[in-house]
Amino acid sequence: MKTMFLIVVLILSALSESMAGDPDILSDFIVPEDNTTVDGNFFTYIGMRVLLDAPEAKTFKVLKASMAEFPALNGQSVSYAVLDFPPGSVNPPHTHPRASELLFLVDGTLEVGFVDTTNKLFTQTLKTGDMFVFPKGLIHFQYNGDKKNEALAVSAFGSANAGTVSVPNSVFNTTIDDGVLALSFKTDVYTIQKIKAGLAGKS
Amino acid sequence: MKTMFLIVVLILSALSESMAGDPDILSDFIVPEDNTTVDGNFFTYIGMRVLLDAPEAKTFKVLKASMAEFPALNGQSVSYAVLDFPPGSVNPPHTHPRASELLFLVDGTLEVGFVDTTNKLFTQTLKTGDMFVFPKGLIHFQYNGDKKNEALAVSAFGSANAGTVSVPNSVFNTTIDDGVLALSFKTDVYTIQKIKAGLAGKS
Amino acid sequence: MKTMFLIVVLILSALSESMAGDPDILSDFIVPEDNTTVDGNFFTYIGMRVLLDAPEAKTFKVLKASMAEFPALNGQSVSYAVLDFPPGSVNPPHTHPRASELLFLVDGTLEVGFVDTTNKLFTQTLKTGDMFVFPKGLIHFQYNGDKKNEALAVSAFGSANAGTVSVPNSVFNTTIDDGVLALSFKTDVYTIQKIKAGLAGKS
Amino acid sequence: MKTMFLIVVLILSALSESMAGDPDILSDFIVPEDNTTVDGNFFTYIGMRVLLDAPEAKTFKVLKASMAEFPALNGQSVSYAVLDFPPGSVNPPHTHPRASELLFLVDGTLEVGFVDTTNKLFTQTLKTGDMFVFPKGLIHFQYNGDKKNEALAVSAFGSANAGTVSVPNSVFNTTIDDGVLALSFKTDVYTIQKIKAGLAGKS
Amino acid sequence: MKTMFLIVVLILSALSESMAGDPDILSDFIVPEDNTTVDGNFFTYIGMRVLLDAPEAKTFKVLKASMAEFPALNGQSVSYAVLDFPPGSVNPPHTHPRASELLFLVDGTLEVGFVDTTNKLFTQTLKTGDMFVFPKGLIHFQYNGDKKNEALAVSAFGSANAGTVSVPNSVFNTTIDDGVLALSFKTDVYTIQKIKAGLAGKS
Amino acid sequence: MKTMFLIVVLILSALSESMAGDPDILSDFIVPEDNTTVDGNFFTYIGMRVLLDAPEAKTFKVLKASMAEFPALNGQSVSYAVLDFPPGSVNPPHTHPRASELLFLVDGTLEVGFVDTTNKLFTQTLKTGDMFVFPKGLIHFQYNGDKKNEALAVSAFGSANAGTVSVPNSVFNTTIDDGVLALSFKTDVYTIQKIKAGLAGKS
Repeated sequence: MKTMFLIVVLILSALSESMAGDPDILSDFIVPEDNTTVDGNFFTYIGMRVLLDAPEAKTFKVLKASMAEFPALNGQSVSYAVLDFPPGSVNPPHTHPRASELLFLVDGTLEVGFVDTTNKLFTQTLKTGDMFVFPKGLIHFQYNGDKKNEALAVSAFGSANAGTVSVPNSVFNTTIDDGVLALSFKTDVYTIQKIKAGLAGKS
Repeated sequence: MKTMFLIVVLILSALSESMAGDPDILSDFIVPEDNTTVDGNFFTYIGMRVLLDAPEAKTFKVLKASMAEFPALNGQSVSYAVLDFPPGSVNPPHTHPRASELLFLVDGTLEVGFVDTTNKLFTQTLKTGDMFVFPKGLIHFQYNGDKKNEALAVSAFGSANAGTVSVPNSVFNTTIDDGVLALSFKTDVYTIQKIKAGLAGKS
Repeated sequence: MKTMFLIVVLILSALSESMAGDPDILSDFIVPEDNTTVDGNFFTYIGMRVLLDAPEAKTFKVLKASMAEFPALNGQSVSYAVLDFPPGSVNPPHTHPRASELLFLVDGTLEVGFVDTTNKLFTQTLKTGDMFVFPKGLIHFQYNGDKKNEALAVSAFGSANAGTVSVPNSVFNTTIDDGVLALSFKTDVYTIQKIKAGLAGKS
Repeated sequence: MKTMFLIVVLILSALSESMAGDPDILSDFIVPEDNTTVDGNFFTYIGMRVLLDAPEAKTFKVLKASMAEFPALNGQSVSYAVLDFPPGSVNPPHTHPRASELLFLVDGTLEVGFVDTTNKLFTQTLKTGDMFVFPKGLIHFQYNGDKKNEALAVSAFGSANAGTVSVPNSVFNTTIDDGVLALSFKTDVYTIQKIKAGLAGKS
Repeated sequence: MKTMFLIVVLILSALSESMAGDPDILSDFIVPEDNTTVDGNFFTYIGMRVLLDAPEAKTFKVLKASMAEFPALNGQSVSYAVLDFPPGSVNPPHTHPRASELLFLVDGTLEVGFVDTTNKLFTQTLKTGDMFVFPKGLIHFQYNGDKKNEALAVSAFGSANAGTVSVPNSVFNTTIDDGVLALSFKTDVYTIQKIKAGLAGKS
Repeated sequence: MKTMFLIVVLILSALSESMAGDPDILSDFIVPEDNTTVDGNFFTYIGMRVLLDAPEAKTFKVLKASMAEFPALNGQSVSYAVLDFPPGSVNPPHTHPRASELLFLVDGTLEVGFVDTTNKLFTQTLKTGDMFVFPKGLIHFQYNGDKKNEALAVSAFGSANAGTVSVPNSVFNTTIDDGVLALSFKTDVYTIQKIKAGLAGKS
């Protein structure tokens, strides 16, 4: 019996994960099937409290509050990420396939940019208190050019699960054939292998 | 000629205002028809910088970055509001007809709550760093019960124009007939008039 | 075995309830998982027949044909409510978070109104045969000012589950703190308690 | 100048007509660009009053309250039609490409049916007070089999402009080639021409 | 145990079938619950290979690659059909309730047409390499008027399950009452029965 | 007068371009404001005929039939691209921000792959007649590894304007700072400059 129950729950989890969507829902909110009590705690996310006592980051770090971390967001079409940029750090070129990003710089300065589908680059140097919007699905990046001070940003997304496609990792940190990449980037296999090694921490 | 041009622009403004929508758009972004140069500034909003040097608020205050203030949000399905709660202040019961709200408490403590369509109240006392989600279209409120310290929150919305329906103002600060309201709230006309006077600053 | 089957059905019911949505569906219609025969009866709702022989209502009454009462509406983005107004009765201020309402007055006269997000009140006195549209998520009310004659209306909604948020009940018939409400409505705790008592039938 | 203004208005009308959509809008409601005053009348439709004093129909008749007749419905995703069936009359097979139909039989009896995409027919004989839902885009019909009494129905649609595709008119009352139709319906050209003549009122 | 597992799978299949939808999904793709390994094969459809060695068709034939045949399409809002027209063959009048069709004529010539909701017919004679778009939900047909050469087309749909409503089959190859049809098409019962017999292969 | 007319048309063009969207439309189809006659030609696209007599391509080539080339697609949520791969050619890593791609290999063999948001690579070697689906917004590529034979594919998209974000061009063929890119790809500025030069045709 217990085994059977586990099978059911596992199948349902898979189902639930794959079927949820960002369009309007037909209920006030969506409760996961394994949730017995729904009270104020269900609608609260405390996972960001760690930021308060966190030591200064040494590399760029993202802390997300999306549907995976905060299930009550399912069906509510909104989520957050907190972006922590030590001096001189970068959030490498990436896209979010399911939402635009509205970045709010709460501390420091930040160089930001995105490239549209006509290959035009739009950039800005943000000051504390500024906002910048990165349209859905376009490649963008952020860079803290300040050599001394951290930059901290909060980003809102119009989806509970915006998703992230990292360009360096998707392209150079998977097993896409070296020759195909060399041809794609109009370079030689050696250069491709050099970048791959660097991203894999082998250089 | 100039008159004619003004007529065209006015008509187009009305059109633009009424037709914009939150569903997926067919372009990377939407440029207002009176915008000649689109560069990084178009995607930047600096209207929140005023918060940095603002004196402490004496009453509850909201600063919005929605489509009206930040036109680049049109079609991007996301917007922000910054909520400033002096000690003991309240953001009265209200709804957002076009989006859920994801509140991020960046300073202080905050009592929050919403009521679902089965009339059930969900509440929480948030600590600094906590998030709370208010589902779309439901009545909710926030209250800073701390008698000494301010509370500051950033709220994200999954629409470029979530809209706000204030319950006190919509119900008791318009010219809805006193008798209709007395009947609706199962009370007497005197009580309705007393609330109306208070909200109108006449009591 | 039977127990296991019940667990499965219960979990699936919860799932079905929470996941259904109003966006376009990928099938002609959606059949509940516990439905073995789908014939013409599945697409028929007879729950409104009671209206034909019903004695005249003494208080305002609503009879709904939404997804809960009529499961075949799931995925079809439409539902009905029949509104019965005895002389002098009111449908108190409320919103529908998931759809606009198109009211068709089939008998009597009716005073109607809604307030938009700029706090502007729009009202009308409807005659038999008139229609009025209440936009999605905005606070509205209806009042039968006729002292002798009933009013009867049919309302259509562009969602299978429009939902209803009653302002009196959501705000004054839940356990929201009296002090928070007094502050919100700029009145005293005594007035709040008086309204609460009236709505709870204790005054 | 006047000519120019007319050109602008004409172009804008075409634009407005073609661009409006049923997805969520970013405003409370949509005001046509040529509308200077928006008050309660804008949200009211009185075109159905004619039904009250109308003589009994001799053939099947539809009276619509969709976006064309009632512009305030634009963006509100809901509309109505009133269907009047004299004894023995039929609403021939048709589809609504943009919405499901929820029919409410307010007087008489009515035979209804639709065919799903697996070619299965679902029928019902409705009594006064019954509702029936016709899923979006499927072929359906209604027939008043009662030889003496009229039937009257109100139909709600989850779109401001559901559209109607009449099978007899689309197929046999346009200039589709007779040979193509004969081949399609596996019959002879004579039979096609006979049906065409009947529908054109020439038989 | 095995029986129980089958019950679970059957219920889930029904659920999956009815709940899937074309709106944006919250994951990269949707994996059916009975799928244990997801690799490149899951995203590949080989069912069209049969076309390569197929003998020339004698009657009009459609080969679909929609969600039913190719489950990975679930949530991706796109599907294909390959249409094979022997000389003189027709694809009878039909509609797709859930998507527009974009036909690409890869071989031969083809007469195509659709009728809009104002009953206007739009036709074209396509040459090899031409495309034609049939708007969602409208009645359309294709006819290969060439007496010697086959025509071959690939059609794309903006839904994983566009659905097909065949006019001849929906109207004249189900058990809709002959009298109702005669009345609808303004002809006699004999003509209706003749068409029905032809479509049923009895004439 | 003529100048004025041009201004109006220009403004309207900009408006039309930026506002159109893929969600359901409220009309059968959308006619551009400068289109006076709408007949069968409006729904026909002949721009692919050039493929028939085209000499064999020497480098990878795409021919699109999207909203820009074929205005009737506006609002119909579907479009095509024809992909021509000479022996050994590649379609470099890219994403489509607004639609999934369903590729149909009509001639030759093709190596294809995409990377999901968990950084997992899915690949396949397609044979003539095979289809492969690339989910919306994910990075993917195609490569014709055959040294002698061309490969030809038709791709369908569930949007009238899927858009293309080329990874090589967006990242290395714009003016994103060399240092930022070196940091992002964990390599040195020299390697970045080498790739940039190659893509710019300077190496």
